[in-house]
Amino acid sequence: MKFGGTSVADASRLRQAARRIVERAEEGNRVVAVLSARGQTTDELIRHAEEVSPNPHPRELDMLLSTGERQSCALCAMAINDLGHRALSLTGSQAGIVTDTSHTRARILQVRAERINEALDGGWIVLVAGFQGVSTARDVTTLGRGGSDTTAVALADAVEAEVCEIYTDVAGVFSADPRVVADARKLAVVSFEEMLEMAASGARVLQLRAVEYGRTHGVRIHVRSSFDGAPGTLVVGEEETMEQPLITAVTHSTGEARITLLGLPDRPGIAGQVFTALAEANVNVDMIIQNEPESEGASADLSFTVPREDLRLARETLDPMKDTLGISTVAEDPDMGRVSIVGAGMRTHPGVAAKVFSTLGAEGINIEMISTSPIKISCVIREDDVRRAVQALHAAFELGPGTIEPEDPFTSRVPV
Amino acid sequence: MKFGGTSVADASRLRQAARRIVERAEEGNRVVAVLSARGQTTDELIRHAEEVSPNPHPRELDMLLSTGERQSCALCAMAINDLGHRALSLTGSQAGIVTDTSHTRARILQVRAERINEALDGGWIVLVAGFQGVSTARDVTTLGRGGSDTTAVALADAVEAEVCEIYTDVAGVFSADPRVVADARKLAVVSFEEMLEMAASGARVLQLRAVEYGRTHGVRIHVRSSFDGAPGTLVVGEEETMEQPLITAVTHSTGEARITLLGLPDRPGIAGQVFTALAEANVNVDMIIQNEPESEGASADLSFTVPREDLRLARETLDPMKDTLGISTVAEDPDMGRVSIVGAGMRTHPGVAAKVFSTLGAEGINIEMISTSPIKISCVIREDDVRRAVQALHAAFELGPGTIEPEDPFTSRVPV
Repeated sequence: MKFGGTSVADASRLRQAARRIVERAEEGNRVVAVLSARGQTTDELIRHAEEVSPNPHPRELDMLLSTGERQSCALCAMAINDLGHRALSLTGSQAGIVTDTSHTRARILQVRAERINEALDGGWIVLVAGFQGVSTARDVTTLGRGGSDTTAVALADAVEAEVCEIYTDVAGVFSADPRVVADARKLAVVSFEEMLEMAASGARVLQLRAVEYGRTHGVRIHVRSSFDGAPGTLVVGEEETMEQPLITAVTHSTGEARITLLGLPDRPGIAGQVFTALAEANVNVDMIIQNEPESEGASADLSFTVPREDLRLARETLDPMKDTLGISTVAEDPDMGRVSIVGAGMRTHPGVAAKVFSTLGAEGINIEMISTSPIKISCVIREDDVRRAVQALHAAFELGPGTIEPEDPFTSRVPV
Repeated sequence: MKFGGTSVADASRLRQAARRIVERAEEGNRVVAVLSARGQTTDELIRHAEEVSPNPHPRELDMLLSTGERQSCALCAMAINDLGHRALSLTGSQAGIVTDTSHTRARILQVRAERINEALDGGWIVLVAGFQGVSTARDVTTLGRGGSDTTAVALADAVEAEVCEIYTDVAGVFSADPRVVADARKLAVVSFEEMLEMAASGARVLQLRAVEYGRTHGVRIHVRSSFDGAPGTLVVGEEETMEQPLITAVTHSTGEARITLLGLPDRPGIAGQVFTALAEANVNVDMIIQNEPESEGASADLSFTVPREDLRLARETLDPMKDTLGISTVAEDPDMGRVSIVGAGMRTHPGVAAKVFSTLGAEGINIEMISTSPIKISCVIREDDVRRAVQALHAAFELGPGTIEPEDPFTSRVPV
């Protein structure tokens, strides 16, 4: 079980999380729970660090930030003890989460679950501080923002859990953002591959890395609400999703910007220089499109999207390179968004892309860039059009309540 | 070097502590610094725990409270890194502080300083989270309030430091509380034995346990201000204090209460029953006086002092025992205080007690209870008289500026 920051933000929510954990234990389960830092704790600690140092040392930032999750675990253990169960809080290090030495964005190398297993054997409920581990150099490390999801999935794998339950402030994964599409449907099941595409194209419910870890290690993930007991969405391997729906969900994002480099010489290595420079400046480049030059030796155009807040940084990085690279113009458009449709079924159904384009066309929405994967079609469009595009696609692909669901995985396979 | 909570309370003080640490390192010293939690952090964490649980589990309370010192260390390490030095923060566990399993009041069993020594050898400044360790059961433990002083002294012993510098918000140890006696003098040197008596009788500058550890292991302790660079007070073994001043200091405390059990049968074991019951109720009993019964088989009186806030608890503990024990009356006086004079020299100078009593008598101050050790005379008096008693004794024993000091230990022996 994993509880996010909002699920442990105050004493009353923390006691509620404790009760959910105890319920699971009383059903006869061995329970390991991973907790995030409470509410704004991590942001406050970052603020303290910035007050002290303009550029906090990464090792020390990890030592500092790791304390938030420890506090949540200790407090939750107290609440569980009060409910008459025995709870044991463990730091990432005590839980055996061994990482590399990349402070603030460490990768898990190994989970040595002996201490957790001993405690479970002894009848304890085990609480583990999320988002952190201990490096091979014996230093405290953190896994980066949202790392608690990854902690939970990695521990679920290490203790061979039946399921990794991610409790969050939404009810599950939806066919579209319910704030945009009124009849968006909660999905009973999605595949890891679909979830990866959804996380990458705007759905915020699960961290990309946690989904990747789940797919690689075959960990069943159940995303569900921490505020009610209803089942949420199960994320599992494709072989378990039984029937492949054509389209699973429409996702979207806003706040993007497009940069186009015009008149790029058709010379090997140019794109490499551009994106190396942007990476070194820490600009997050997302979709990249390069057209074919019309003839050999002619100039090419290169377009890519960045988060809007990175636009200035991207410009400052590219402007000094214009002459060296022979770029004629750096064009910008700061008001971009994106709409994507995701579905494992589109692999075997041609004509999905055509339907996307004609649906958007019928709405008078201009498509600025297109990017596809075997199970996803993403269109960069004007930000103002995003809401309408999501609604039109959700309707066109009939993703609302009438949809035939695959066999309900909760009644058949998951211990709920 | 040890810095208390007020010395790291905000970003500016934390940077000041960092500068002091760096100064010491630049003088060519190998430096280990122990830090407390910032300002009110520990109290805030205790409040969070009380919000969640009426009776927080001790193991989990330790996990929670230990985070405050870790935050201080991480932040201070950032500040030192910014000053161009390499600093490494360590938890109590990483620093090798092994304790017993008595959560919230653990005793240090062993300090395994290998990691600290390796870091010092590598040219690092080492910062250690105070007040905590790791138990033989691999759990995080805390050493109880003020435990950071003990951490500092224990580490100073383990790394064979020349001196353990305790930086605090007062300038050192004084011949009396400067808020009570205007010409109180900062003492250049006191012995461990004197410091123990002073800590036990009201001087708050050093934790009793830290002084005990220092005496047992022969660690030179230098108590000094974190706000200026002036030398403070050196606490050392008696053999180092050279000349024994007759009286070193006058200490005092207020907020005490006296309880007297009248008509106690003169039977073996009665006092044992009384104080066992009080200890089990967590009443802090301090001075105990029992008069001799006038004849064999006659009844005795037993008086003792407790902190005023424990008075109600003491009464509730003793009232139900009156009949069983055959006590006729439990008398109380809630407005007591204490004045003490401490000095190693009184061992060899008779007449000190007489001078104390006559000085207080000349002031019209009634002495309610007396307790002595070879180097201390304590008198319980009415709280209203305490201030006057301190001033009178300080003057009578000529403890002000004119006093001949032993050889200045700072110029002759301490690397300042």
